[in-house]
Amino acid sequence: MSETFVGIDLGGTNIKIGLFDAELKLVCKTSVTTDADMGPEIVIDKMAQTVKDLVAEAGLSPENVVAVGIGTPGPAKYTEGIIIKSTNMPKFKNVPICQMLVDRLGVPVVFDNDANVACWGEYVVGAGKGVQDMVFFTLGTGIGGGVVSNGELVHGCDENAAELGHTIIYPNGRKCNCGQRGCVEAYASADSTARRAAEAIEAGAESTLKKVFDEKGRITSKDVYEHLAAGDKLAGEITDGTAEALALTCINMLHTTEPKRIVFVGGMIAAGDALLKRIRDFFEEHIWTIKKEEVEICFATLGEDAGIIGAGALARHTYGQQES
Amino acid sequence: MSETFVGIDLGGTNIKIGLFDAELKLVCKTSVTTDADMGPEIVIDKMAQTVKDLVAEAGLSPENVVAVGIGTPGPAKYTEGIIIKSTNMPKFKNVPICQMLVDRLGVPVVFDNDANVACWGEYVVGAGKGVQDMVFFTLGTGIGGGVVSNGELVHGCDENAAELGHTIIYPNGRKCNCGQRGCVEAYASADSTARRAAEAIEAGAESTLKKVFDEKGRITSKDVYEHLAAGDKLAGEITDGTAEALALTCINMLHTTEPKRIVFVGGMIAAGDALLKRIRDFFEEHIWTIKKEEVEICFATLGEDAGIIGAGALARHTYGQQES
Repeated sequence: MSETFVGIDLGGTNIKIGLFDAELKLVCKTSVTTDADMGPEIVIDKMAQTVKDLVAEAGLSPENVVAVGIGTPGPAKYTEGIIIKSTNMPKFKNVPICQMLVDRLGVPVVFDNDANVACWGEYVVGAGKGVQDMVFFTLGTGIGGGVVSNGELVHGCDENAAELGHTIIYPNGRKCNCGQRGCVEAYASADSTARRAAEAIEAGAESTLKKVFDEKGRITSKDVYEHLAAGDKLAGEITDGTAEALALTCINMLHTTEPKRIVFVGGMIAAGDALLKRIRDFFEEHIWTIKKEEVEICFATLGEDAGIIGAGALARHTYGQQES
Repeated sequence: MSETFVGIDLGGTNIKIGLFDAELKLVCKTSVTTDADMGPEIVIDKMAQTVKDLVAEAGLSPENVVAVGIGTPGPAKYTEGIIIKSTNMPKFKNVPICQMLVDRLGVPVVFDNDANVACWGEYVVGAGKGVQDMVFFTLGTGIGGGVVSNGELVHGCDENAAELGHTIIYPNGRKCNCGQRGCVEAYASADSTARRAAEAIEAGAESTLKKVFDEKGRITSKDVYEHLAAGDKLAGEITDGTAEALALTCINMLHTTEPKRIVFVGGMIAAGDALLKRIRDFFEEHIWTIKKEEVEICFATLGEDAGIIGAGALARHTYGQQES
């Protein structure tokens, strides 16, 4: 039997766990509720037991497991393996999660933040496959990021690199939750996209979104791209704003780590080609003319399993005998 | 005798060459004219002969030389060791400079662009000493850059990473030579700083710089910081513009590769603390509030030998037995 790797995606609501073979093929997976209010000891006991059960169900023995990878949102000391605190798991304070898992499972554990883990998954077996340099953006409530340079994740001096949502594109522009002004997150996250639409309607813009806003009292990014698909002009303008902000950020990343591929993920990519084509068009509009750029701007391909795949891939990268 | 490394800084006017010991202490150095119009064969013959003479003068034998490092401006295929073309050396087209030096000197040769080489020198023995993550800006005619991430230079997918002068900070702003608008280079290079001062005077601004402009028909960045030191208000405003543009770029780099130290070099740093303090102040004004940042913003320390030191350091890094 070849090597087996475990990938764990620890969220505030669910713990997703997958087993992967040496080629990172998914052997089997499961999901259990986190029950974060039970505290870290019980949660991590349950996590370890679920891994053991899954290994048994797959007809494997514990000896087949080479290593475990785990991803969670920060802030954490990833290298030291400690969750400092967690918005969604308030009882998790200074939890040495890696050591606690090592104690329970007897194999090495590698730990990183959820955006880096998903980035690594896309890099190894998803949209980034085959390149050495990739940049990754998660378009959710906020904008997270990941950077792979020369085949390795960029972590930075204090493990806070790739906070790409907080690069500034419009100095003195829209206020961001982080305290800065003009961050790309303040324009192009799913939340900011929806908020800009709501603000435009409140300011009197004509749009089919007005009915949604009047009925629900709010607008979501899903509303924006649904009305975009139906031909609404305001939805088009709002999407332009999102795409232009992302394109400018792509240009800045190109001139920084020079990725071969830039990958977007998150609910927003359900907007599909209407969004992707706009990002590419604004990129062409703003990029320099002294050199033709070939960077590929695309959407992620792994879907909801990205977290466990990335965690399994990180375990293989760190502790596997060889990478295929 | 311990290992000896050769560092070469190939410019359009002069070739600077230094010999370094295994601790990167300068053993001796020299400078000869490039005579680039004689063509690559003759220039590289002369370069190799000068290295041999320098080794003999230092009382060393050719066997002491472990490797050669060389830096030039691009465009080039650095990994392949080929100068594609050169603005200052028009006869250099598709020159396999590494192989030509290997043939003449019998030791391995490592090649990189001048900004990366100077960045590496500062990283190893200058302003970046002791950190793992550094960002480097050269403030000259344009703005060049270098990024060290986790102890290695970032080259990117096509060896054009770290073109930091062309990250966009003011979308649709000032036109840059590269064809983009709003690049930091269009605001904060020595040339752009001087140009903004000249434009302000032409537009009628009051300043002691007006006399310089009327007499010489132009203003240099040196004029700007000299009049700044003398208390001229416009010179202060222009320097503010330079510093704010650089500070915004520092913030974007912090959120991308998270350097521990950000190092500036080039004629502009002669402005001294008046410039450095402004950059730090604008950084504090614009940076996020959710986390206290400790990044050190400072000036380079190696001076005019940075090119040969960096090239020697790169030779040691690539081919040395061990790094001290």
